[in-house]
Amino acid sequence: MKIEGRNCVYEALTSDTLTVNSIMVAKGDDSKIVRLARQKGVKLTFVEKSVLDKESIDGKHQGYIADVIDFEYCDIDDILAQSDEPFVVILDNINDPHNFGSIIRVCECAGVDGIIIGRMRQVAVNDTVVKTSAGAFAHMKIARVTNINNAIKQLQQKGVWVYALDMDGEEITQANLKGAVALVVGSEGFGVSQLTRKCCDGVVSMKLKGKVNSLNASVACGVAVYEVVRQRG
Amino acid sequence: MKIEGRNCVYEALTSDTLTVNSIMVAKGDDSKIVRLARQKGVKLTFVEKSVLDKESIDGKHQGYIADVIDFEYCDIDDILAQSDEPFVVILDNINDPHNFGSIIRVCECAGVDGIIIGRMRQVAVNDTVVKTSAGAFAHMKIARVTNINNAIKQLQQKGVWVYALDMDGEEITQANLKGAVALVVGSEGFGVSQLTRKCCDGVVSMKLKGKVNSLNASVACGVAVYEVVRQRG
Repeated sequence: MKIEGRNCVYEALTSDTLTVNSIMVAKGDDSKIVRLARQKGVKLTFVEKSVLDKESIDGKHQGYIADVIDFEYCDIDDILAQSDEPFVVILDNINDPHNFGSIIRVCECAGVDGIIIGRMRQVAVNDTVVKTSAGAFAHMKIARVTNINNAIKQLQQKGVWVYALDMDGEEITQANLKGAVALVVGSEGFGVSQLTRKCCDGVVSMKLKGKVNSLNASVACGVAVYEVVRQRG
Repeated sequence: MKIEGRNCVYEALTSDTLTVNSIMVAKGDDSKIVRLARQKGVKLTFVEKSVLDKESIDGKHQGYIADVIDFEYCDIDDILAQSDEPFVVILDNINDPHNFGSIIRVCECAGVDGIIIGRMRQVAVNDTVVKTSAGAFAHMKIARVTNINNAIKQLQQKGVWVYALDMDGEEITQANLKGAVALVVGSEGFGVSQLTRKCCDGVVSMKLKGKVNSLNASVACGVAVYEVVRQRG
């Protein structure tokens, strides 16, 4: 779906229900749309005005044409309704669409009931995510919330134990991850943010035995969700 | 071979197996990389950022591009000499350099002693692999052999139990993976080839609970090596 014009593209970027896949922008543009798109990890293509004129439906692009896809996010309650003992993954600022797609993929294999993502500093379900997920996105419930920490509190009120997957926590194979459980996976660069970590019931870590010890977010998520699968038996 | 980016160049400098010829650095840089290179007598060339941008493969040089003597593969015996109970990963036709890099990365974290790859239908350690490994390549022993199946027999003769990670095998958490062990990881499209599978002492599988059930090779490898880590305690 094409959306064009300054206001329309800006509204699409800030919409709860729409996902902007990419935006075609006039060369040299450094407006708030461009900055917001960068913040949200939306792909930007800078082109000559003549290209925009050609691509435009009615010539009223005002320098912006967005490609929008429709992904239906669900509510947290929809995820919790999946199982008596829900298994949830929460993403804290995953910006790389390949990582997000790969996380959806392994979560689908491991029988995760749903994924919760934030609206800001988190890549949405876009074409790259869809592609990397190898079709798994179509079978995964994904909720997009304004505030991850409020979502964590909401889960805790419903009896879900929430664990941050981060450094310096309890060794994950020693932690009790049975029952209703949620794992918070942080970004590669920065891990789980401090405030979010404090909201969790505990922190679990993987044993690191190397010199570099730098784990890809989707691989770390995969190891963690399969540890939950093992414990659930 | 060109290596770029802060982490990769630093890891190359501290590696036991790699030799750094020279490093191109942004003018005015006085980081720990520059100090370490001086200490080790590695030639430094200070250039404008524009020169780095021009020389960079993917624009992600972060101020550092190193010229490294081509990756030195080791022998299988070098890998086995790492430990009394070696932990080996064998790759069967991994063609995607991102997957290979990601596998090196998680293997380094899990304390794998070495990786064995074939010469044919298998991506070698190239620039993309190096970059994706986030520096882990510099600390991982990698042997390149003509025939994977002969390598498996060689490992078995030395008392290593070899398991294929594939469909329709014993559930991996139920298998005994203690002691000297090797895991064979197949390509995403085709899994472990039939002949190789037959050479193994057993087949181990992950529990798949979804509808799509398509796992990324590096994520699958990550889950499997961490199951070995768990069993070894």
